[in-house]
Amino acid sequence: MTDLDHLRVVLVATRNPLNIGAAARAMSNFGVRRLRVVNPYDAAFREARSAVGASGLLAKAEQYENVADAVADCKLVVGTTAAKRRDLQHRLLRLDVGARTIKRQLKAGRVALLFGSERYGLSNQEMSHCHWVMRIPTREEHCSMNLGQAVAVCLYELVRGQKTAPAKTAPGKKERTSATSRQVERLTQVLFEVLGASGYVQPRAVAAEEKLRRLVRRMELNANDTEVWLGMLRQVAWKLGASEKNDG
Amino acid sequence: MTDLDHLRVVLVATRNPLNIGAAARAMSNFGVRRLRVVNPYDAAFREARSAVGASGLLAKAEQYENVADAVADCKLVVGTTAAKRRDLQHRLLRLDVGARTIKRQLKAGRVALLFGSERYGLSNQEMSHCHWVMRIPTREEHCSMNLGQAVAVCLYELVRGQKTAPAKTAPGKKERTSATSRQVERLTQVLFEVLGASGYVQPRAVAAEEKLRRLVRRMELNANDTEVWLGMLRQVAWKLGASEKNDG
Repeated sequence: MTDLDHLRVVLVATRNPLNIGAAARAMSNFGVRRLRVVNPYDAAFREARSAVGASGLLAKAEQYENVADAVADCKLVVGTTAAKRRDLQHRLLRLDVGARTIKRQLKAGRVALLFGSERYGLSNQEMSHCHWVMRIPTREEHCSMNLGQAVAVCLYELVRGQKTAPAKTAPGKKERTSATSRQVERLTQVLFEVLGASGYVQPRAVAAEEKLRRLVRRMELNANDTEVWLGMLRQVAWKLGASEKNDG
Repeated sequence: MTDLDHLRVVLVATRNPLNIGAAARAMSNFGVRRLRVVNPYDAAFREARSAVGASGLLAKAEQYENVADAVADCKLVVGTTAAKRRDLQHRLLRLDVGARTIKRQLKAGRVALLFGSERYGLSNQEMSHCHWVMRIPTREEHCSMNLGQAVAVCLYELVRGQKTAPAKTAPGKKERTSATSRQVERLTQVLFEVLGASGYVQPRAVAAEEKLRRLVRRMELNANDTEVWLGMLRQVAWKLGASEKNDG
């Protein structure tokens, strides 16, 4: 049981079965399991449910005849909009701001998140069941979002920055340990040798060596990459006859 | 002109025209205008372009044969993944963390954001052109996202909370102009030549080349240092008899 089990995604008057399926997929991606549909085109809902790969989430979706019934057991009801509606009677919060409140509320009880129909969004009547409304920050010139994408963005905002999110390091991947100065200096020296042997710098040219030292340090190599570079350059040095292959 | 005009969304090997259209719509919603497609199903790309309501953005999309060409003029190249890939060779950042870096970089130059094919995501070869990779925090049990939704979520994160003050370069610190991908790729190729000529790698060893490509990108060189490295390695290559001194 996580807080997100308290969340109900409510699709109101959805017309396109692909959009119902897309919303369900985004819910599953982000760990939200309870879908409610209000007054969808019956054919669309049936089609979405029977689509290949439709999730158990869709099979368990609950169908309601009106918004009032669909949100009856929820303590907080939040509408979504992408448009800047002049007729809006509600408090309008930016998505990231509203999501903070929703996350707090999810600890205490059920929250409904409403998405309107593809063409019209939520009507004033439907919206009247909401405590307030969140706006996805789309561009004014093209504000209307695809329904599945709107659901994905809103749910992403709810799971965003969770402490339980995966660690930075990929599984099985070594931690990035910075190279020690000793390693970096060794690399600098071999590089200097290689460049001397190839005629790029004069051997023992102090200014060139310093320049090179700064160059190598700007690379900010990790320990592992430093060893790889050392291996490569030693081979080159050996081929150029500058030094023994296993030197250093 | 906004910072987002520096962003290039790159769809690699996309198969479904609906997904190309959905990506374009999300871009338009969030004010990102430049779409590049690499090696899409031609039919899918044509269909997406001719779809009813297809945007000017799609009409202006640029088509490339490979990732190298598609990102050549970009200074930062970032891959995306929803899966927890065990074979990932790159540094993996959470989306919200990576987006901060991208936003900073967009002030200075072009950034490419790569999305892989619907079925397989980005291949290791495609990913080897990336500096690092961002992960959308989906659930481990169902991590694979719809492409259009993944694009929407990533772009939302880039415009989210857009009131933060721009980061300023520390006084007295030189602006670091990052190298373009074209420069970095040229460096990779010369290094590969040098290592081939010195016997460190087999010429035309694909895995070795990908490894090298990642290694060079992890250095995050600025434009100037990249040229210095190129000069050094060309001299070494010439000395080893690998290529002409003034090649490239």
